[in-house]
Amino acid sequence: MITRMSSLFLRTLREDPADAEVPSHKLLVRAGYVRRVAPGGYSWLPLGLRVLRNIEAVVREEMDAFGAQEIQFPALLPKEPYEATNRWEEYGPNIFRLKDRKGADYLLGPTHEELFTLTVKGEYSSYKDYPVTLYQIQTKYRDEARPRAGILRGREFLMKDSYSFDLTDEGLSKSYQNHRDAYIRIFDRLGLEYVVVSATSGAMGGSASEEFLAVAETGEDTFVRSTESGYAANVEAVTTPAPAAQSIDDKPAAAVHHTPNTPTIESLVDFLNANTDRKFTAADTLKNVLVKTKVPGKEWELLAIAVPGDREVDFKRLEAALEPAEVAMLDEADFAKNTFLVKGYIGPGALQANGVRFLADPRIVTGTAWVTGADKADHHVVDLVAGRDFTPDGTIDVAEVREGDPSPDGKGVLVAARGIEIGHIFQLGRKYADAFSLDALGPDSKPVRITMGSYGIGVSRLVAAIAEQSHDDRGLIWPRNVAPADVHVVIAGKDETLTAAGEDFAQQLSARGLKVILDDRKASPGVKFADAELVGIPTILVIGRGLKDGTVEVKDRKSGDRVEVPVAEAVDHLVNIVNS
Amino acid sequence: MITRMSSLFLRTLREDPADAEVPSHKLLVRAGYVRRVAPGGYSWLPLGLRVLRNIEAVVREEMDAFGAQEIQFPALLPKEPYEATNRWEEYGPNIFRLKDRKGADYLLGPTHEELFTLTVKGEYSSYKDYPVTLYQIQTKYRDEARPRAGILRGREFLMKDSYSFDLTDEGLSKSYQNHRDAYIRIFDRLGLEYVVVSATSGAMGGSASEEFLAVAETGEDTFVRSTESGYAANVEAVTTPAPAAQSIDDKPAAAVHHTPNTPTIESLVDFLNANTDRKFTAADTLKNVLVKTKVPGKEWELLAIAVPGDREVDFKRLEAALEPAEVAMLDEADFAKNTFLVKGYIGPGALQANGVRFLADPRIVTGTAWVTGADKADHHVVDLVAGRDFTPDGTIDVAEVREGDPSPDGKGVLVAARGIEIGHIFQLGRKYADAFSLDALGPDSKPVRITMGSYGIGVSRLVAAIAEQSHDDRGLIWPRNVAPADVHVVIAGKDETLTAAGEDFAQQLSARGLKVILDDRKASPGVKFADAELVGIPTILVIGRGLKDGTVEVKDRKSGDRVEVPVAEAVDHLVNIVNS
Repeated sequence: MITRMSSLFLRTLREDPADAEVPSHKLLVRAGYVRRVAPGGYSWLPLGLRVLRNIEAVVREEMDAFGAQEIQFPALLPKEPYEATNRWEEYGPNIFRLKDRKGADYLLGPTHEELFTLTVKGEYSSYKDYPVTLYQIQTKYRDEARPRAGILRGREFLMKDSYSFDLTDEGLSKSYQNHRDAYIRIFDRLGLEYVVVSATSGAMGGSASEEFLAVAETGEDTFVRSTESGYAANVEAVTTPAPAAQSIDDKPAAAVHHTPNTPTIESLVDFLNANTDRKFTAADTLKNVLVKTKVPGKEWELLAIAVPGDREVDFKRLEAALEPAEVAMLDEADFAKNTFLVKGYIGPGALQANGVRFLADPRIVTGTAWVTGADKADHHVVDLVAGRDFTPDGTIDVAEVREGDPSPDGKGVLVAARGIEIGHIFQLGRKYADAFSLDALGPDSKPVRITMGSYGIGVSRLVAAIAEQSHDDRGLIWPRNVAPADVHVVIAGKDETLTAAGEDFAQQLSARGLKVILDDRKASPGVKFADAELVGIPTILVIGRGLKDGTVEVKDRKSGDRVEVPVAEAVDHLVNIVNS
Repeated sequence: MITRMSSLFLRTLREDPADAEVPSHKLLVRAGYVRRVAPGGYSWLPLGLRVLRNIEAVVREEMDAFGAQEIQFPALLPKEPYEATNRWEEYGPNIFRLKDRKGADYLLGPTHEELFTLTVKGEYSSYKDYPVTLYQIQTKYRDEARPRAGILRGREFLMKDSYSFDLTDEGLSKSYQNHRDAYIRIFDRLGLEYVVVSATSGAMGGSASEEFLAVAETGEDTFVRSTESGYAANVEAVTTPAPAAQSIDDKPAAAVHHTPNTPTIESLVDFLNANTDRKFTAADTLKNVLVKTKVPGKEWELLAIAVPGDREVDFKRLEAALEPAEVAMLDEADFAKNTFLVKGYIGPGALQANGVRFLADPRIVTGTAWVTGADKADHHVVDLVAGRDFTPDGTIDVAEVREGDPSPDGKGVLVAARGIEIGHIFQLGRKYADAFSLDALGPDSKPVRITMGSYGIGVSRLVAAIAEQSHDDRGLIWPRNVAPADVHVVIAGKDETLTAAGEDFAQQLSARGLKVILDDRKASPGVKFADAELVGIPTILVIGRGLKDGTVEVKDRKSGDRVEVPVAEAVDHLVNIVNS
């Protein structure tokens, strides 16, 4: 196939679009791959659509390879199934809603759990029908509050979503693993650098869950990774290893100190260091953070969280840990109601005496001694020993994670990184099967409730994620598997022999099955070279001054390496590069 | 590729769905190709999606073959471009409208003229850039008042829409012809029986326009075709050949008759035949039909239309002929205002004396003599001769078209038929270019207004149209180019040798590049045969009792022909059938 630049619907831009901040957005617009139509709505121009279709094909192949079956739902969906699962409400303003001419409510599908569940229920009835995995590659809609970064976070986007249906938890684990393996093959084939991070479940409600993040400075998602192992996780999912318990016997008795003017951890440490003969750090103090939580259908309750004083409670980790319960900070009314809470001087004593649930960071093991509030203004207690002077009701792992913290797998320390979520695999469990009573009739004629998994890949987002990882200051650099063409032939001059040679090469390469872009325009070599770099085809064939001496130049877009190749060998040379 | 019935997400149904009236709807649901999700909204199950993709591939190949370039727009579109062309208003309740979280208005795109025009304007500026043809294969939305017949008229559907952009009318003609040729290739490859009918432009405003109709009794569109030539046209577009003018000299003078109690043509003819020595038929009378018309921005005006008394005025033909003017029947107030209109006895005399525009059917040529109203109650005039006693202000071809009328091309007579609109090609002209000032800078640096064509193919509808044409009472019969598989292998028995042979055949056929459905279920041969007929793969391989004698049976789904083939020859035999 030959695509001629002289007629290709492509106009490259010299300037970055005004609304673009990240490289992929700038370059995909400048190279003529996408155009903005509305906030979060983009059109795909010819080369962009080819990249999208190439990615789609890889995803489809790997899904089919493990027996997933492709189907397709409408994007315009009736309200009723989403009411049955309460998601019509839960999505709030994040979905597009509309009414038809008869006033019936519809939404533009953000994900299709409901429809897949209902469809399987409609077709299948016996345990012999299971397991089954279905998928679609389909346009999805979310009314993002802040669509950004071009196609990286759009309001209309292409997604592969799949759903597994199993009779047993073991079956679900296997389906989950099938997806995990397929995702790894997909992202490997697409040439991405990515990590698989443990994730919390988010709003979808379920258990095991991992995210695939393409590593990118511009990514919206933060995660931590080990300096010495493959460990990576969302901050919400990091687990803190508990240190070994210590002996209680050798600890001094707890003692209350008058500590005037010590409203902060820092001032408290300074005061103690100036007024005692010991040296304390913030890590020796115990901060008791009060929040309130509410389990759906119940009343708000107080909850105290003890963390070492050198760390804050990470509210996102806290929310993830308490889900599905809600959590909120205390307000003045709460303090007024609970007079035993002496702000700034709260300690375990009054909390536990007053029946407040008291959970501690995993570092607070038996035998550790702490400086903490004495439940009395301007007073702190020193050498309050866990397991002797107080015993938490349990542990909660919600303190902030820091660079340098030990990796949970014991190898190396954690560093922070950013990524773009390109895939998410998720054991839904029986939430949707429960909502729609999806049962299979078992061999004993008793109903078996089906368990589900939900798995997504952001197909259109992948175009941006790849561009984000693979570009330089001159333009895009497509991995071969997704490039919109194999070879970009530049006719570098207006001489008729150059034009004829360019045509001839393009024909020969096309005859060998390669996809060729032929720059046959009447533009200057400089303009053509710049466009070739911007467009980012992996291999560039330059037909220029060398031709009279019987050579052409083959340039590798990524490395910049150039080689002179004899005309007679050039086609084989290029075919080898492309197929290697 | 082997698809096993034992795991395929497919359940065939024995009963027609309750809401289905047409064969394609019944069979596509029964055979497990589609499922209803909402009114006019269907999901595609695995085999249905394959058929859809096969059709899509044929459309794409033929579009690419003549240089059309594929792009893709969002389906969710901002209001503004549609306001610029007034279509936001004009579509009325026929489009889906919605607001985003900020209250901005959006629609779900029904067609994309505006977006394509704006995109070309955004990229192109010089006459050297043109011509260009762009297309997309994309999900479209229309809020149909009565979605019906399954995927034949849905509210969400897949459409190929393309748009040509030319500098000149000649260029537009060429782009139009390119599309026409490509459409013929596409519909031929899909094995459809179809006609190309002249069409009126409908609401899109333009000039030359043709529709491709798949011939089907269940079609919504009526058309007429010649019994002896390829002529076919929408009724609105049929032209009536004018007979030769006649001599005036040999006609008797016009004479007014008292014709009491002759309110209808029939009673008038009976009266004259009883009271004169001549024999009249309804075709000898002239019916003067009064309407009023209104050109946008002007006042309502009277219009008289003379047609032979044996024909009615066809209101759809009248609307099409007068477009963009509106047309309406007269009400009592109109008659009260125009006292010269003697209801039931209106003749050309009073009309023309009072300045009413008076247009005549093409059959009313010079020298023809007519019986018509004498502008006086209970009186008619006989032998009123065109060109002697009255001269129309022009002709208008809006009389009803009847079976048996001569074909406009002079060959044979017209018969009525029904069809499904599967394609529409349309010379838009400069309507959209005018709306958005789409100009190219000409060689003389002066702007040249671009002229456009608009071309559509109902891709998802084609699945139904093909099914509508190609089925029998046992099920679907897919043409080879669109079938979801090449060969349906039925293991007709539970014997292990049959199962092993079935597996082996499937593997061998797959290795030869064929797509195979293998019915490896534990169902009875009868159930498997019935499902094979219902699913409609063109070739069925039955592995049954003959196997022990070294033969298998190859059955042609369409003809029902069966041949016994030696096992050793069966694979070659099938490969030949599929590739022939």
